[in-house]
Amino acid sequence: MNLINHQFRLAARPSGLPKRSDWNYTEEPVRDPGPGQFVVKNQYISLDPAMRGWMNEGRSYIEPVKIGDVMRAGAVGRVVASQNPNFKTGEHVFGVLGMQEYATTDGTGINKIDPNLAPLPVYLGALGITGLTAYFGLLEIGKPVAGDTVVVSGAAGATGMVVGQIAKIKGCRAVGIAGGPDKCDYAVRELGFDACIDYKSENVMESLRRHCPKGINIYFDNVGGEILDAALALLARQARVVLCGAISQYNSTSSIKGPANYLSLLVNSARMEGFIVFNYAARYGEGIRELATWRAQGKLKTREDIVEGLQTFPETLLKLFSGENFGKLMIKCAD
Amino acid sequence: MNLINHQFRLAARPSGLPKRSDWNYTEEPVRDPGPGQFVVKNQYISLDPAMRGWMNEGRSYIEPVKIGDVMRAGAVGRVVASQNPNFKTGEHVFGVLGMQEYATTDGTGINKIDPNLAPLPVYLGALGITGLTAYFGLLEIGKPVAGDTVVVSGAAGATGMVVGQIAKIKGCRAVGIAGGPDKCDYAVRELGFDACIDYKSENVMESLRRHCPKGINIYFDNVGGEILDAALALLARQARVVLCGAISQYNSTSSIKGPANYLSLLVNSARMEGFIVFNYAARYGEGIRELATWRAQGKLKTREDIVEGLQTFPETLLKLFSGENFGKLMIKCAD
Repeated sequence: MNLINHQFRLAARPSGLPKRSDWNYTEEPVRDPGPGQFVVKNQYISLDPAMRGWMNEGRSYIEPVKIGDVMRAGAVGRVVASQNPNFKTGEHVFGVLGMQEYATTDGTGINKIDPNLAPLPVYLGALGITGLTAYFGLLEIGKPVAGDTVVVSGAAGATGMVVGQIAKIKGCRAVGIAGGPDKCDYAVRELGFDACIDYKSENVMESLRRHCPKGINIYFDNVGGEILDAALALLARQARVVLCGAISQYNSTSSIKGPANYLSLLVNSARMEGFIVFNYAARYGEGIRELATWRAQGKLKTREDIVEGLQTFPETLLKLFSGENFGKLMIKCAD
Repeated sequence: MNLINHQFRLAARPSGLPKRSDWNYTEEPVRDPGPGQFVVKNQYISLDPAMRGWMNEGRSYIEPVKIGDVMRAGAVGRVVASQNPNFKTGEHVFGVLGMQEYATTDGTGINKIDPNLAPLPVYLGALGITGLTAYFGLLEIGKPVAGDTVVVSGAAGATGMVVGQIAKIKGCRAVGIAGGPDKCDYAVRELGFDACIDYKSENVMESLRRHCPKGINIYFDNVGGEILDAALALLARQARVVLCGAISQYNSTSSIKGPANYLSLLVNSARMEGFIVFNYAARYGEGIRELATWRAQGKLKTREDIVEGLQTFPETLLKLFSGENFGKLMIKCAD
């Protein structure tokens, strides 16, 4: 197959923010697919906060990426060669295809997607893992009831923007927390949040108190740190704190900041619960169908933050940790 | 009624450990009960970690004790005068009767108890609020399944010792954490715990790892702080952390130490949930019946730590925070 693949392979386990030298950028020819295999040309590759955790040694919900392995990443792409009867050349697929131009796979964990139903990038965002994370996290762990006040941090991020919109669909009050006036305006004017707090210019605790006069029934946490503590302080009775992420802590080189206000869970008979979207893999179809329906009805808006070029990966990833990204961050690797 | 009452009334909101000057010891005559009222002579008065929280200003699950009010306390006693047809002189009752020798009440929240079924002190412990706390916290929040590994801190305290015994009754592995060899020996030899870790002489994390080779399914936390963090680090998938108390933190004058390992909840799809036993008030009868049955069958052993004399209250209370108490701490006020 006269094709050359470029890849980011893990070279070192980073301390603090990852840097370019933590990966090797390698080049190798694409081999012809063996029996049952096919080759995918990656078109869009997802960049996610969880990547930072996958780079660490040690026990977690998933094996760490091994030194020398292609960096784990979700991607959408097109089948360009196939010896697998279920996946034909020209079909589009989503899967954990790696931070590379071409992936060779036997189809395990690979799903076909329909580019006529939604543009390809949407399958990495609102109709992909981040949308499903919002969907199952809010509905299954948060269990919203109409009239609840739902607060979500990272409200202009890929998961947060879907959480707030589902909260509205379910008849809740949606209050976002995001960085900067552009993101906050977008959450309120475009996405229909009832309010959005700019953590860069506002006192989060005071603003939460103003926007959540009856307390917080559900706090969907993507960030951890001081914002988690502020939300904990304002929980309503029997509140649910959905632990989805803690992006403020992932690059910490000292110890993690634990939530000092965790005893609010005790006095409010409240619950803080973590989840991994993979727990719901058997129900992804159901989630994607409902998300796609809401999108078609105009109730669920999506936004992607697309950066061109595989080679930009190490620097583009940092946008997640600096809070620069706005919408689902991904790399465009090929047309 | 030619009777004199002595009382501890809150004088100041303490900073750090409470001290004698935070209360006034007052004396006043006992008035004749009015219509519908009756007078209880307190015999045993319960000392509980929650008392420390009740002394603080501010929003919690219950109103703070007001300055000048009799210190809130559960007690068992005998009716000595009555103008209430439902409570007759000579009957025994349990209720929030206060840190005093005599309580006058209209019967709201007061329950009769049978001193022939169990000795009076047991109604402040295993058949009282602390036993019910263990019962509803473990069964309703922890939801034990036979074969689970249940870890409980404060294992020689009033709640912890009941938690471990119920865990065994439900077919679980019970691992306690307590301070000192006497308490640990007692938990294993008398109460039937599978193991008990002495946090004063052992590395709690290492010992937990040894005694919980499959991880912790339920951690029932009475103490907070570093022990909570060690347990979080060793959670099994879908574990439940029952937040019952945080005695290591109640007297902190700096900020509370939040659990730095809280992201273990995320990677293990685990849950940390607080509760207040009063949420289950409608089911106390059910709980007491089952606890009494287990006690009668010899499956539930009880232990009380009884100190004589109402006047010892400020110093006796400190035994809870120094870890000196062994079993349910209470004051004997009268025969």
